[in-house]
Amino acid sequence: MPAKLPDDPLPWECLDQTYLFRRPPWLVLRHQRFRLPTGREIADYWISEFPPWVNVVAVTRHDELVFVRQYRPGLGAVHYEIPAGVVDEGEDLEAAGRRELREETGFGGGHWSLLTRLSANPALQNNWTTTFLAEGVERVAEPAPETTEDLRVHLIKVGDAARLIDEGEMIQALHAAPLLRYLLGRSGGR
Amino acid sequence: MPAKLPDDPLPWECLDQTYLFRRPPWLVLRHQRFRLPTGREIADYWISEFPPWVNVVAVTRHDELVFVRQYRPGLGAVHYEIPAGVVDEGEDLEAAGRRELREETGFGGGHWSLLTRLSANPALQNNWTTTFLAEGVERVAEPAPETTEDLRVHLIKVGDAARLIDEGEMIQALHAAPLLRYLLGRSGGR
Repeated sequence: MPAKLPDDPLPWECLDQTYLFRRPPWLVLRHQRFRLPTGREIADYWISEFPPWVNVVAVTRHDELVFVRQYRPGLGAVHYEIPAGVVDEGEDLEAAGRRELREETGFGGGHWSLLTRLSANPALQNNWTTTFLAEGVERVAEPAPETTEDLRVHLIKVGDAARLIDEGEMIQALHAAPLLRYLLGRSGGR
Repeated sequence: MPAKLPDDPLPWECLDQTYLFRRPPWLVLRHQRFRLPTGREIADYWISEFPPWVNVVAVTRHDELVFVRQYRPGLGAVHYEIPAGVVDEGEDLEAAGRRELREETGFGGGHWSLLTRLSANPALQNNWTTTFLAEGVERVAEPAPETTEDLRVHLIKVGDAARLIDEGEMIQALHAAPLLRYLLGRSGGR
């Protein structure tokens, strides 16, 4: 839990809550009515519920990042991404990360550690995205993506990663943030 | 537009599209049915539409970052954030950033440049978030937040920012990514 500061804004009071959809894992949407500590009411507020998500910054022994390219219909484009997916019910987070990495790319092994724990948007959704750093991964199998996935695996030199973000080739904030945290650590920054 | 690679996945074909809600700016939701290039159909896919969002990494002349703390009901908690908001219809992106910074924190002025252009999630939503770096900002007015906002302004030393991300005090990926890009640049990393 984050630290609480003495003058922090107080929680909002939920006056009413109704589920508009319950179609997990991609559409669980609730409508809420809130009263703010200031007394102001917000009559219409919508929050999406999702299961936990997991991402992997995977680095080979040759200092290459294991990226995938996928078509994403929200933006209608293909970009570089880090391997990522939904944590299954009851699944251990690191096990989910290892499963997603292997399914999407065929890479596995290596030394795993927690890199970041972030939210795509704490105003609009309720889940966390945990990103693991997997160092020293190697190709251990053929990729076996889900039938609704159509992706390509690319190995990118670590030194090229920040440029891909700068040039708009990697645009997912939940992917860029942990990757930049990794690069900052390598650069000696805090 | 991002580069296209010869073996990139092809776009999905939209077979059907229906709007479930049209309540901008916070709930415009469409249902789509897609056929993938692999032939597989996805019968239920939901995409949220939002206006452009804008964020500001604002740094004072004393090397402090201008952060805010807000309660966010998706996670039910208060964290550090960078000033951020919705771009008004027809509004210039930098003008929107300057407006949000001034409204939320009372800071203004400084030298502005584009820092990152990211998506919260290109699979599930259609908008971009542009983050500006504003260097040398100073307090120019009293904060004047919207009536539905209840926030506190904090000045945080640049050298403490990565620690706040590591310790879970700043958790919004759309905020952490541009901030880490700024820190990586300062550290001499690429």
